[in-house]
Amino acid sequence: MIEAIKISNIDRAKNAMVAALGSDAVLTTDEQVKEFRDPYEGAGATDFQPSFVVQPTTVEEVQEIVRIARDVGVPIWTSSTGRNYGYGGSAPVVSGSIVLNFRRMNKVLEINEEAGYALVEPGVRFFDLYDAIKAQGAKLMMSCPDIGWGSLVGNALDHGYGYTEMGDHSEAVCGMEVVLASGEVLRTGLGAVTKSPMWQRRKRGFGPQLDNLFMQSNYGIVTKMGRWLSPQPEVIATGSLICDTDDGIVAMIDALRPLMLDGTIQGRPLITSSPEPKDGRAKPGEDTIGASKQKKISAAYPPGRWNARISFYGHESMVNAREVIVRKAFERLPNVTMEIRKYPGNVDRKDVNPLDLVAAGIPNMFLLDELYKHFGLSVGHVCYSPSIPFTGKDAQRHERVIQEIQRDLGLVGGFGWIADARCLQGVSMIMYDVDNKEEILSSHEAVRRMLEKGAELGWTEYRAHPSLIEAVASHFDFGDHSLFKVYGKIKDALDPAGILSPGNHGIWPSDQHWQ
Amino acid sequence: MIEAIKISNIDRAKNAMVAALGSDAVLTTDEQVKEFRDPYEGAGATDFQPSFVVQPTTVEEVQEIVRIARDVGVPIWTSSTGRNYGYGGSAPVVSGSIVLNFRRMNKVLEINEEAGYALVEPGVRFFDLYDAIKAQGAKLMMSCPDIGWGSLVGNALDHGYGYTEMGDHSEAVCGMEVVLASGEVLRTGLGAVTKSPMWQRRKRGFGPQLDNLFMQSNYGIVTKMGRWLSPQPEVIATGSLICDTDDGIVAMIDALRPLMLDGTIQGRPLITSSPEPKDGRAKPGEDTIGASKQKKISAAYPPGRWNARISFYGHESMVNAREVIVRKAFERLPNVTMEIRKYPGNVDRKDVNPLDLVAAGIPNMFLLDELYKHFGLSVGHVCYSPSIPFTGKDAQRHERVIQEIQRDLGLVGGFGWIADARCLQGVSMIMYDVDNKEEILSSHEAVRRMLEKGAELGWTEYRAHPSLIEAVASHFDFGDHSLFKVYGKIKDALDPAGILSPGNHGIWPSDQHWQ
Repeated sequence: MIEAIKISNIDRAKNAMVAALGSDAVLTTDEQVKEFRDPYEGAGATDFQPSFVVQPTTVEEVQEIVRIARDVGVPIWTSSTGRNYGYGGSAPVVSGSIVLNFRRMNKVLEINEEAGYALVEPGVRFFDLYDAIKAQGAKLMMSCPDIGWGSLVGNALDHGYGYTEMGDHSEAVCGMEVVLASGEVLRTGLGAVTKSPMWQRRKRGFGPQLDNLFMQSNYGIVTKMGRWLSPQPEVIATGSLICDTDDGIVAMIDALRPLMLDGTIQGRPLITSSPEPKDGRAKPGEDTIGASKQKKISAAYPPGRWNARISFYGHESMVNAREVIVRKAFERLPNVTMEIRKYPGNVDRKDVNPLDLVAAGIPNMFLLDELYKHFGLSVGHVCYSPSIPFTGKDAQRHERVIQEIQRDLGLVGGFGWIADARCLQGVSMIMYDVDNKEEILSSHEAVRRMLEKGAELGWTEYRAHPSLIEAVASHFDFGDHSLFKVYGKIKDALDPAGILSPGNHGIWPSDQHWQ
Repeated sequence: MIEAIKISNIDRAKNAMVAALGSDAVLTTDEQVKEFRDPYEGAGATDFQPSFVVQPTTVEEVQEIVRIARDVGVPIWTSSTGRNYGYGGSAPVVSGSIVLNFRRMNKVLEINEEAGYALVEPGVRFFDLYDAIKAQGAKLMMSCPDIGWGSLVGNALDHGYGYTEMGDHSEAVCGMEVVLASGEVLRTGLGAVTKSPMWQRRKRGFGPQLDNLFMQSNYGIVTKMGRWLSPQPEVIATGSLICDTDDGIVAMIDALRPLMLDGTIQGRPLITSSPEPKDGRAKPGEDTIGASKQKKISAAYPPGRWNARISFYGHESMVNAREVIVRKAFERLPNVTMEIRKYPGNVDRKDVNPLDLVAAGIPNMFLLDELYKHFGLSVGHVCYSPSIPFTGKDAQRHERVIQEIQRDLGLVGGFGWIADARCLQGVSMIMYDVDNKEEILSSHEAVRRMLEKGAELGWTEYRAHPSLIEAVASHFDFGDHSLFKVYGKIKDALDPAGILSPGNHGIWPSDQHWQ
C-alpha cells in the first residue's frame, strides 16, 4: 500500500524535517531504517514498511514534525522505543508512514518519593527509570515487563503489563501531555490547571478523564506521562506454585482466584504452561516435528507442568501472614507445591534469582537471553493474546486449543497467562525462525486459527500485530460495530486527515485515503 | 435562559413522549416536577429549571426519548436518581431542559459472586444493590457513599466516593452500555464483543477504553454499568485516629500518607475537622454569629478536633497485622489516639455502630438524619470540593482558608477530606437555611471566595454545583484551554446539536444555541 503515499511527498517531508530538526534527527538509509521495521517479519515482507525515521528531542520538535506531515500530507507512525517485538516493533499499518521514534527524547523529568510517582518522556526505558530511582536514592519500587529495554510510555499506551502491585501499567498512568494533530499541546486531568500541583497525584480533573483515550489509539502523540510508583517494601517475597499434573490447572486456577480477588496475592501472577515436564511424561518421538523445540521451550521456562509466580510485598509481618494464607489454601491440592524466596526491599539486582527479577521490579533481559540461548538469534515470534475469564475450566480449554493448533501445524510456542483478579490475560508466543519462510507462514496461519477458534468462545485479543488488527477489530460487533464507529468519529474530530498513526488498533478517519 | 428553548417545542416534545411512553412516564405538574429541581435552591431561584420529567423503563424507551428530543430540538438533562443534593440534584444547566430520570429503570441485572461484580441499571440505589446481594446470599461487599439513597451509576459518573477498598467508585466501573445522541447503542470494552463473557471482567478491550469518557460528560446516556465488588472479608475493622490539638493535623496527615501509599490502610479514610471540640476549647460568644451552629456541627461529627476514620478488611491475621503497624506509626504522636471496632464480614446492619456503617459497606441515611436532627428539615448546603496534595502543610492551609472565609461571612459548614494515597479530596459543605435568602447568598459568596483563593494555590474542584461549573472549568487554562477545546470537539463529533445535557461540566458543542 506504499503506493497510496506519493514518493515525492515523502521526499518533501524528509527535506522539511531535515531543515527543521537537523540531519541527525532524520534516519533515511536502509541500514538506519532496518531497526524500525518489524524485527520478526522475516525475508520478503512488503507490508507495514516505514519510509524513514525522525527522532525529535523536544515537544516543540514534535509539534514541528506534525505541522510538516500535515502540510505535506504524509502520515506519521509513532513508536516510543519500538521494542514491542511480538507486536511488530515500529512497523506502521500504512506502508510509507514516517516513523516518529522517541529514543532521543528520554528524560526522567521528576521522581517524587513522597507522593510515589515519576514523570517521564516517551523515550525513557524501564532500565532508565530504575537507574534514575537508584541515583536519586528514592525509596520507590517500579513495575517492569519481562524485557527491560522497552519504553514506559509505549508499554503503558499499549495496555502492557508488569508483575508487581503496579503491574497493570495503564492503570498506573496519571496525567499526560499530548501533541494533537492540530499542533496544539494538551495536558490531561489536573495538568490542565497550569499552576496545579496535582497532575501526577490525581487521575481525574473536571470533566471526563482522557488518559485512557490516548492509549491504544491515534488521537495524539504522548510527549510526557505520569506514572505511579510503589513505596519500597520492607520485604519482597516471590516464588512459585508448581503443579506437575496436566489437569491440575483447573483446581490451581480456581484456588488462585479468591486469593487475587481479596488481595492476598499482590502483583500479577504469571502462570506458565510447559507441556513437556522434566519428569519425562512426554514420549520422545511422539511429536516428531516439534519435540526438540518443545524441549527447548521447557528448558527456558520455570519448573513444573504449570508454574504460577506469586509475590508479596510490604511489612514483614504482613508478608508472612499472606504466605500462611496461601499455603493453607493450597494444602488441599496435593499436586501443587509452593516455593518462596525472600529479599529485602532494597536488594541489589546481582543478589536476585533471575527468575525473580521482574517480580522485584528490576528491569532485565533474562527472558530474551534465554530464548536466544536455546533457539539462536534468528528466533522470532507472533503473539495471540486473548482475555479469558479467570476460571479453571476456561484456562484448561484455552491451553488445549493453543497446543492443538500448534501441534497440527508442527509449531511450538511459549504459553501462559498474566492473572488479574477477574481475567486471565493469555499470552501465546508462537515461535519461528525468521529465516524460515514456511515456518513464518505456518505461525501466522496458527494465529489466524486461534483467533477464529477464540472468537467462537467470545474471546479476543488485547493487543495485536499490525497484520491481525483488522481481524481483531472485526470481533467488536455489538450494535452494528458501534464502538469502532465512535472510535472513527473521535478520529474525525481530532485528526480528520488521518495524519497520526492511521490504522492503529483499527481506527481510521472516515475520509481515509491511505486505506 | 429558558427563553432559548421555545415553549412550543417543549410542548411538542411532551406530547410526543406521552404518546410514545404513556402518560405514567411523563411528570409535568409543578408538584411532580418540584422534586427534580435543585433541592437546596431556596425561594426565588430562576436558573437551572427543568421543564418536565420523563422516566423510561427500557433502553428502547431511552432511544425513543433521544429521537424525539433531537427531532423537536429540545435538550435532555439526564439524572439517575437525582440525589446528589449538594451538587444541584437534577437541576439542568440549561433551563427548560427535559429531565430524563432513571428511577423507574432500576433492575440489578446480575450479581456474580465468583468474579466479584454486579451489572446494574442507572436507577439502582445503593440500598437496592445491598438488598440484592443479601437476597442472593452472595458473599460480596459493596462500597457506598454517606447517603445510601443515591444511584450507583449516577454517583460513579460524577466521580463519587465511598470508603471501602472499592471506594473510588469511578475506578470500580467495568463496562457500560450507552445510548448515543444518534440513537445508537454502544457497549464499551469487551461488551462490544457480543458473545464475550468479559464485559465486567476486564476494563479494556481493543482500542481506547471509553468508560471514563462517559463520566462527568454529556457524550451519551449510560443505561447499564458494570461495577466491581469486593469479596466479603472475614473481618471488618474500623475506627478512628483522634487528634485533639489544632495543629496536630500536620503530623497526623504526614503519618497517614505512607500507610495509604503502601496499602496498610485500606479503603479511603474520611478525615473531619470539628473546630469546636467537646472539651470546650472554643470560647462561647467569641464567634457571635456562628457559635451555636458550630456547636451543632461538632455534635453531628465524630469525636476530636480531627478525626480520621481508618479501616481494614480481610483475614483476621492480616487485619491484626495492619492494626499493629498503624498503632506503631502513631505511637510517636502523643496527641493522637486510636480506636478500632471489629465486626464479622457478614455483620447485620443493626449490630453496627452508625458511624461505622459506610466503612462496612452498608448503605444508610445516618449523616442526613444527623443534619436534620441538629439543623431542622430546611437545612441546605453548597459544596466546595478541591483536590489538594496529601501533605500536612497543604491540609492545614486548606482548612484555615475554609474556616476563615466561613467566619468572615458568619457561616458554618461541615469540612473534611476523603483520602486517596496521593490526594486529599476536600469536601466542604457550607450550610444554610433554604428559607433564608440572605444566608443562601452568603453561602454562594463563600464558595466563590474559596474557589478564588484555592485557584491561587493551584487547587480546583472535582465536582461542582451548576452555578459554579463555568468558574471551575475556567481554571483549566493550560495551552489556551486545550483540554476543554478537545472536550468540545468530541461533543461536536458525538452530539453536534447539543441535545444531551448541554453545559454539563462545562462541555458544549461549538454551535451552542442554548448557551
